[in-house]
Amino acid sequence: MTRSAQAPSLTLLLDTISSDLDRVNAWLDERYQPDHPRLAPLIEHVRGFRGKQVRAAQVMLVAQGCGGIRPEHTVVAGVVEMIHAATLVHDDLLDGAAERRGMDCVHRRWDAHSSVLLGDWIYAQAFLQATELSDNLCSRELARATARVCRGEIRQNLSAGDFDLDEAEYLDQIDGKTAALFEAAGRLGAAYAGADLELRERCARHGLLAGRAFQMQDDLLDLVGDEDRARKSLGTDWANGKMTLPLIRLRDALDEEQREALRAQFGTGAPREVLFDGPFAEALEDAVARSRAEIAETLEQSCQALEALPEAGPRQQLIDLTRFLGSRTR
Amino acid sequence: MTRSAQAPSLTLLLDTISSDLDRVNAWLDERYQPDHPRLAPLIEHVRGFRGKQVRAAQVMLVAQGCGGIRPEHTVVAGVVEMIHAATLVHDDLLDGAAERRGMDCVHRRWDAHSSVLLGDWIYAQAFLQATELSDNLCSRELARATARVCRGEIRQNLSAGDFDLDEAEYLDQIDGKTAALFEAAGRLGAAYAGADLELRERCARHGLLAGRAFQMQDDLLDLVGDEDRARKSLGTDWANGKMTLPLIRLRDALDEEQREALRAQFGTGAPREVLFDGPFAEALEDAVARSRAEIAETLEQSCQALEALPEAGPRQQLIDLTRFLGSRTR
Repeated sequence: MTRSAQAPSLTLLLDTISSDLDRVNAWLDERYQPDHPRLAPLIEHVRGFRGKQVRAAQVMLVAQGCGGIRPEHTVVAGVVEMIHAATLVHDDLLDGAAERRGMDCVHRRWDAHSSVLLGDWIYAQAFLQATELSDNLCSRELARATARVCRGEIRQNLSAGDFDLDEAEYLDQIDGKTAALFEAAGRLGAAYAGADLELRERCARHGLLAGRAFQMQDDLLDLVGDEDRARKSLGTDWANGKMTLPLIRLRDALDEEQREALRAQFGTGAPREVLFDGPFAEALEDAVARSRAEIAETLEQSCQALEALPEAGPRQQLIDLTRFLGSRTR
Repeated sequence: MTRSAQAPSLTLLLDTISSDLDRVNAWLDERYQPDHPRLAPLIEHVRGFRGKQVRAAQVMLVAQGCGGIRPEHTVVAGVVEMIHAATLVHDDLLDGAAERRGMDCVHRRWDAHSSVLLGDWIYAQAFLQATELSDNLCSRELARATARVCRGEIRQNLSAGDFDLDEAEYLDQIDGKTAALFEAAGRLGAAYAGADLELRERCARHGLLAGRAFQMQDDLLDLVGDEDRARKSLGTDWANGKMTLPLIRLRDALDEEQREALRAQFGTGAPREVLFDGPFAEALEDAVARSRAEIAETLEQSCQALEALPEAGPRQQLIDLTRFLGSRTR
């Protein structure tokens, strides 16, 4: 599957690093090798569901912005994409998803066993490949980020049905679940380009805030996105009792009576349409507008962190990539 | 849970390294720290189900045998035990097990989400802690072993119902699933004690063969063990169509007609008792005797690999530990 088939504007945006991303894909192809015929179809499957690879692009653009892409960046970008792939394999199983990028999910085409174990195998391969580098910076940073991803997901899962979840906890959960890997990608992209500590931390902060905006936008789309464009069912967070930014804003704007009426339907499987008309409609409109403003503000802060980046060209591309992440409509 | 409550004879055997194992447990306690109240019960649960810790004991005895225990061995032993714990959390989910060491399994006390994500978190923590060491030997060896464990388990899972599975494939699967971690523990125990390459490879070979015998014995007990002593249901491999050593020996000793009769019941959920009486009884007795002999032979080979170990005391303790592993009755 080519990148251009999925996101033409992104392909244009990443034009200057397309050969670097090709190198990452060749590196991944070499690492996704079965050692036994029984494993071949499973591993082939994982090779096939590469997505937009925005994390690999982030690593490369940060590297360019900090002084130049080096051979280590191929490994960093490849390992980051592997870890992301492992989380997707497990997420799809846990979410009971049917398809990813037009292909059956692993647990549907094979079984839950294969899904759990294949995800574990990808994690182990990722951590193995990280040891290719002469120092342990990549191993340590990505193991730490992965642990944070898992903790974020566990906390989010154990918070299901918690109508009173506050904003700080929500942000902490999405920072773990989604933003931690972008944060690590930024820090490592800078570090292996020879950036000093201050610049590394700015690139890490850019990644953290970009990842946070990305997840906030994802959560907003689940509430108000277009199902046809998204090519998946939406409203699942509301239906399953997962408290997200726009729902927090909606909840906190209601008077007590309305809030209790909202609570009564939260997580009961009710479709999101119950929010669109009737008593919640006006407050929802405000909540969505406020969420959009907060996402835009987070994107702005993310881009501001890049001001210290010495190279203007890659800086602008990173800003464009960041805006792409936080303003997707599907 | 203390070690002595579970295996008094093993405790006696490990007497000389009990303070080293205590240090591993203190190290593990420090690493199993929740960073949020929601995670505390899950992590407390994992802390509680420490088992016999034979892999940690192996690391320490190999280290003693190769010249002495160093601070690095605490990290190696701790990381090996964490990886083992992560595989158990996922195995219990996939096997639909109810209890482990008298405690509800994670997926029963919480849910499948928690089980998958907690296992992932333990893996990530293990790989993070491995980077505490100044070189990447431990990171690399244990990531490689973990990848092998996963591949072995995937292959075994995809072989379910394969009545014609041959011995070589069976051995390769259990070498991955079980023996690879013992092999890595042996290699790392020797390496961090300053052993030369040849001695490291002998300790790795000891671990590989000890782990193989351990799994062969486990598979034999599933067929002919005592359910009361095992405190779990047995016969599940036969019932679920998992081909193991004694079943391979039984199958290959039958004439064609009997073999087809066996095939017809393999993996159908039939209880193992159908093998104990009737047409298969005599061949089963031979197959079990042959399996026992093969396990004993594997144990012998495992112990022979230790002959090069310079220190006689730890060498004898390792031999005793190896015999313990391969001759358990539950």
